[in-house]
This record gives sequence, C-alpha cells and structure tokens, in this order.
Amino acid sequence: MSVDTICALATAPGGAIGIVRISGNETLEILSRVFTKDLTNAQPNTIHYGHIRNGEEIVDEVLVSVFRAPHSYTGEESAEISCHGSRYILNKVLALLIANGCRQAGPGEFTQRAYLNGKMDLSQAEAVADLIASTNQATHQIAMSQLRGHFSSKLAQLREQLLKLTSLLELELDFSDHEDLEFADRSELMDLTKTIDNHITRLAKSFETGQALKQGIPVAIVGKTNVGKSTLLNRLLKDDRAIVSDVHGTTRDTIEDTIDINGITFRFIDTAGIRQTQDEVEQIGITRTYAAIDKARIVLWLIDAEPSTEEINDILQHTENKKLIVIKNKADKADNNSYNLLNYPFITISAKFGTGIEELEQAIYEAANIPALTENDIIVTNARHYDALVRAHDNIQRVIDGLQMQLSGDLLSEDLRQALDTLAEITGGQITPNEVLGNIFKNFCVGK
Amino acid sequence: MSVDTICALATAPGGAIGIVRISGNETLEILSRVFTKDLTNAQPNTIHYGHIRNGEEIVDEVLVSVFRAPHSYTGEESAEISCHGSRYILNKVLALLIANGCRQAGPGEFTQRAYLNGKMDLSQAEAVADLIASTNQATHQIAMSQLRGHFSSKLAQLREQLLKLTSLLELELDFSDHEDLEFADRSELMDLTKTIDNHITRLAKSFETGQALKQGIPVAIVGKTNVGKSTLLNRLLKDDRAIVSDVHGTTRDTIEDTIDINGITFRFIDTAGIRQTQDEVEQIGITRTYAAIDKARIVLWLIDAEPSTEEINDILQHTENKKLIVIKNKADKADNNSYNLLNYPFITISAKFGTGIEELEQAIYEAANIPALTENDIIVTNARHYDALVRAHDNIQRVIDGLQMQLSGDLLSEDLRQALDTLAEITGGQITPNEVLGNIFKNFCVGK
Repeated sequence: MSVDTICALATAPGGAIGIVRISGNETLEILSRVFTKDLTNAQPNTIHYGHIRNGEEIVDEVLVSVFRAPHSYTGEESAEISCHGSRYILNKVLALLIANGCRQAGPGEFTQRAYLNGKMDLSQAEAVADLIASTNQATHQIAMSQLRGHFSSKLAQLREQLLKLTSLLELELDFSDHEDLEFADRSELMDLTKTIDNHITRLAKSFETGQALKQGIPVAIVGKTNVGKSTLLNRLLKDDRAIVSDVHGTTRDTIEDTIDINGITFRFIDTAGIRQTQDEVEQIGITRTYAAIDKARIVLWLIDAEPSTEEINDILQHTENKKLIVIKNKADKADNNSYNLLNYPFITISAKFGTGIEELEQAIYEAANIPALTENDIIVTNARHYDALVRAHDNIQRVIDGLQMQLSGDLLSEDLRQALDTLAEITGGQITPNEVLGNIFKNFCVGK
Repeated sequence: MSVDTICALATAPGGAIGIVRISGNETLEILSRVFTKDLTNAQPNTIHYGHIRNGEEIVDEVLVSVFRAPHSYTGEESAEISCHGSRYILNKVLALLIANGCRQAGPGEFTQRAYLNGKMDLSQAEAVADLIASTNQATHQIAMSQLRGHFSSKLAQLREQLLKLTSLLELELDFSDHEDLEFADRSELMDLTKTIDNHITRLAKSFETGQALKQGIPVAIVGKTNVGKSTLLNRLLKDDRAIVSDVHGTTRDTIEDTIDINGITFRFIDTAGIRQTQDEVEQIGITRTYAAIDKARIVLWLIDAEPSTEEINDILQHTENKKLIVIKNKADKADNNSYNLLNYPFITISAKFGTGIEELEQAIYEAANIPALTENDIIVTNARHYDALVRAHDNIQRVIDGLQMQLSGDLLSEDLRQALDTLAEITGGQITPNEVLGNIFKNFCVGK
C-alpha cells in the first residue's frame, strides 16, 4: 500500500526529552537526508546516535529508534527521534522533516494506520486513547483489558453464536416441510437468541459503570454554614499526590477536588461554593446546594447537631434517587445523643482531627456500588460501543418477537444480519466509512 | 564504581508517549523483574517490546531501549521505557521500579552522572540544560556550540597558553643570573599575558550579549494615549506560531508579548499597561511608562503628530542610555510633514494597515546591536562561567601589574596558578566540591 509519510511530536512539550515520531514508506529515506548516518538499511529495533542536520547547521544531538515494517506500531516503516525537549528544537526537527517530504500527522493518525494495517481492531485502537487518558486503577484496567482484546474476543463469541443461530434458521428453512421438527428447533432458537441478548444487554448495562469510572463519580457535600464542609473536603482531599505531579510541579488545580478510593475516582461537585460559603448570601447558597445535589450520585449530608424534621424532609426530598450518607461532624464535641434521623444510619467523624474518615471513605466507596472488577471483566466505556450494543439488542429483540409470532426464518434472518453488522461496527470488522474513522480518531492526541 | 540505580520521568506529562529513564549498575536486573523478558544480556542499543508487570497485573505495553555501559548518555548501564503517556501509568511504572530497587533521580542527576563518568565536562553539562531551555535560533546555537565543546576547547587553549607563560617564567628564573636576557623575556611575557587577558575579557564581555539573548531583549513602547500603541503591539506580535504550540493548543499567554526577529527574541515590557491604557488615570500611565523605559534596552516612541519641545526633552531625558526608535504612526493619515525631532530619524508606519512594520523590525533588530553569530562564536550565557572569567581576568591583571612592577617570576606564578585553577572551575577539570555540583544541577529538569 502506498501511503505518505507522517510525522508528529509524540510527547508533551516541556520535558527533558521530546520524541518525534515518523511512519510511512519513506521514513528511512527522509530521515537519512537529515541524519548523520544513512539509515535506509538499518536493522529493525535498533537505536542510532547522531545529529539532525539542516545542511551545515546541527539542529540536535539525537537518538533514532528504527522500526521496520511490518513489525512496528503502525505496521509501516517507522522511527522515533529522541531529541532534547526544547520547543524550539522540536519545531525545527518537525519543520525539517516536513521540508524533506513528511506530512504533519493528524490526531490519532499513527493508531489509525495501525488499525488500517490490521495491527489492532477499532475497539483496541480506541482503548489506546482510553489508556492514555486513564487516571485511576479502574479506568486503566478497563482500557488495558480492551487493548488486549478481551472485549473484541467477547464480541467475536457473540457473532459466532449469531452465525450459529442464522445457520440453524437456514436448517429450519431446509426442513420447513417437516412440521414435526419445527417446534423443537424454535424453542432451541429462542433459548439461544435470549442467551445472546442477555450477553449484549449485560455489556450495554456496564456502560453506566464505565461512564461513572471514566468521569469520576459525582459527590456533593451539603450542610449548614459552619458545620465543617470545607474542613471535611480538605480532609478528604488530603494530599497523597503521586510522584509525577510532585516532580513536575503540576498545579493542584487540575486534579483538585477528586479523590481515589480503592482505585475509583470520586469527583466533588461545586466545591468552589463550599470554599466561599462564609461570604455568601444564604439564599444563593441554598440554590447552589440543590444544583450540586442534582448533579451528584452520592450526597454527603454533614450535620453537627440534631436536624429539625423540616430539614430532614427537605434533604430526603431532594436526594430521592441519590445515595445519601449522613455524617455527624465534630465528634470531638459530641453530645453522644443518637439523633432521630428517621432511623437513617450515620457516620460520626471529626473533620478537624481526622477521626472516622476511613470509615467515611469506605461508606462512599460502597455507596458508589461499583462491582469489584477483575482483570477479565468487560466494562463498556465508549459511547459508540454502547450505541452499537443498544442497536444490536433492538435487532435481537425483533428476532425474539418474530420467533414468538412464529414468523418464518427468512423474515428473521434480516434482523440477525443487522445484529451481526452492528456488532461488527465496534471492532471495525466491516469496512468502516471514512467519516466514522474521522470521528473516532479526531479526539486522539497528535503523535499517537 | 558502585552507584545506585536511579529512575525518573524524562518527558512532560500529557503526551501520547511518556519516557521513564533508568541508569545505574542494576538497571537491567531491576527492569527484568518487572518486564516480560529477561534483559540482563540484552545487546546494546536494542529495543524490546513487552509488558511492564506488577505480579499478574499488566501495567503497560511498552518498548524498552537498552543502553550498555560505557556507551550510554550517563556512561552507565541504562534504559528507557516508552510507555503510554498516562500520568497514572507513568506513576505506576516509577513506583514499581522504586519498589524493585531504583531510587527517584534528582534534577539533572543523569547529566551529573554523565559528567562524573567523564562523558562531558561541566560546561557541556550546563549546555544540556541551556539546550532544553533554548527558545530561539541564537540561544539554540550558543547552547549547541557549548555542548559540542567549543567553549571547552577555547578554555583549554587559554590554559595551555597560561601553562606556557608559567614555563617561560620558570625559564626566566633559571636564567635569572643573566641580566641581558631578562628584558627580552619580560616583554615577550607581557605580550603573551595581555593576549591571554584579551581573550578572557572578550569572553567575559560576551556575557552581556548572552544574557540579552537568553532572556530576550527588553523593549518598551511609549507614547500618548490613543496614538496606537496597542495596535502596534498586536501588529508586532502577529501570530506565526510554530507547529508544536499549534498542535498542543498551548495558550498564547505563556509565549505572548515576545517576538523573534532574525532568530533573536525581543520581550515587550509592561504590555498589560498598554492594553489597559484607555481606563487609566493619566498620572499612573506616566509613572508606569517611566518604569517600563527604565527596564528596557530599546524604546519605541510612538507619535502621530509633531511632539512639543517639552515632550521631546522629556523622552530624551528618560532614554539617555537606551536605544530610542521614533515611530510616526498613522501613515495612512500622514500630513507628509517632516517634523523637527532634533533631527532624530524616524520610521513611518501604519500600525492599522501594517505598512512600515518590516522596516521597523529591522530597526529594532539593529538597535539590539547583537553581533551576527556564526556557528563557532563563543558567547558566555552562564553566570557561573562569567564569574570565573572575571576572577581569572583579575588574576591575570595582577600578573600584568607584577610584570610592570618588575616583580620576580616566583611572585607572579601564584597568580598564574590561580588563573589556571579559576578557568578549570568552568569545565570542572579540577575536583569540584559537591555543593558546587549541587548548585549547578538543581535547576535542571528531572529526567535529564
């Protein structure tokens, strides 16, 4: 296949090292024009030290990693140039490669080529983006499982069963004169169809969990002024930030107001409001609180004294479809009364002294109600996949209806064929239109 | 030499790829504990595909580049792991390496090891940081020249000449009984000493240029309200931003208000003031203008009508040690009068329509008075080097004074020895105290 040669920066600007990636038939020829050594006959998976040169000018001292087709990420001839991480240098190197015949790659174009060259299917390609975006154990595990093809295998199994169903229907057609055979086959067909539908439905249902894990589970902290909401928030956000962010002095802001409990991310809603509480007109505070509750999946209701019946009713009314956790703060000043909270269980903490926080975290984790994930669990996190699964379910549902209505096999096979095609969209087994590919890869980062 | 094995993230977080770097005796043993393959006998400069594993859990699919001592950046056994660029994954990989015997590297520790292992001298090591920080052609060229050892060679030449001087002095001592020889030797000694001093002084003087290039040459735009300062600024800042910043959506803010002309960066001072001009009380504006002029090296005085004598005197008084460029704006509305500006030449532009801007840029470039740099020019950009050169100059000056005062050779040799030691500090040829090394490397980025 004749493809042009693409290049892109594959690392974020600002580090010690910057990587420029190249892929396409002309990779080694173009590189050899700007590199000290001729690399056109370089061995696969070897590293070469030298200079990137623009005529007489030395642009950088670099290491070039050479990958030969088909044993590369894209399946094409490709290379990576490890440069000093200066924006100026990286721009120069990219400009030089472009002047010598490369084209600037679009977002995800390397992975798109990997897909087009059969190195991975579409759902695996999408897992690459998810893996790069993963921020906690759960999203990492799901993306890694998908990249390793677990979802693809599951879909392959389902398609195999659908094909079996189709062939059974065809068998039925062949024997359609034998009336005594029909009912046995139909019941077997119905069982098989329902089993397939169960699997598809289970996958589709996992999308809710997938979304929650991907975006972080929204949590609201509510309660009266001065009850200690801000102190509790800071206590929960206690800094055990990791090595990378420490080293690079990443500002807290970007990852602020989320916590990880047992590998799942919880995202606190409208915490700006909590922090500004003191200055606020009470009315605004209340509106804001209801808005926060509305967006939350878990509501932490913080109290430091027995709430009135009105208060209780007010909160219960606004948290009907939420997981409510009642928290009695200021355990250090506790009056040891067990309040009448309509028998709602509550957790006693001291936000100030940090007592009860572990118990609270455990309660938050349990309220999220995320099933414990194992390496082999398949969780759908991608809206495109979810959409296809829902449509496949509809197709199968029509088959089930048809079976119940005693429709003939040739009428059912159309829906079966559509279910097969719909599932094939996920992995891209069918020929995928360019605009669909464009939509999939446009949200990738450049250089991947 | 027994050294511990260090690891660090070498790329900025947020890209498609993240590189984790490892160096030290145990590199391949530690890696083999967490990688799918045993790498302890891996060939130098080879790339290996596999998984980073924490027990049964797959942390990432990676490529590992193996470098064997002494043919690596640090001179030690070392490796680079090319991971998916997820902060979560990179943290996991670093934590795993640390759990298996690595230590998190400090800033510049890889380069420090390269220096300690004789792969480069100190001034070259410092050039690595400068290269990474380089933002334009000039700073890039200077850093590259220094990294390639041009400055080091120049210093080696100077030290050779100082050693020759010392041996001539010793020769003089040997022949000190022959009075007829002395004067010829002394005049030769004086010539040689002055030549050496000239070279050292020229290097020291280049520091001013080096600083200007490194930090950008400060430019102030002054002029009355509504004369078009803001329009001129925007015109000069016209966006021809480069590939990297475009692609990664870097905000304009960080590199805003600087322009490159012929590879040199000019930095506009207090442009916030210019942008807010309309809202300001005039008095504040004037104070601010003088403060901006004070910090500038080049002052652009924008006028749209003939200034009064008071105005002219006011500006000239405040720009005595500055390069002043008078700019007549609104060429489109020009009255074609040539104003009496004490015969000060001025450039006519239209900020609005962009006419005359190229001429203005050329004038700004010339006002900077930066000598045209060639690949082999040595420009001192480092304050530590400048400090050493100034002290070496002082030592040599004492030798010159001593020669003039007819001091005997053994009295002069002490100063010569100090000059030699002082120059050796720059390249670290002498044993360099740990605290000096610490100061040099603390400003490096981690991972380099």
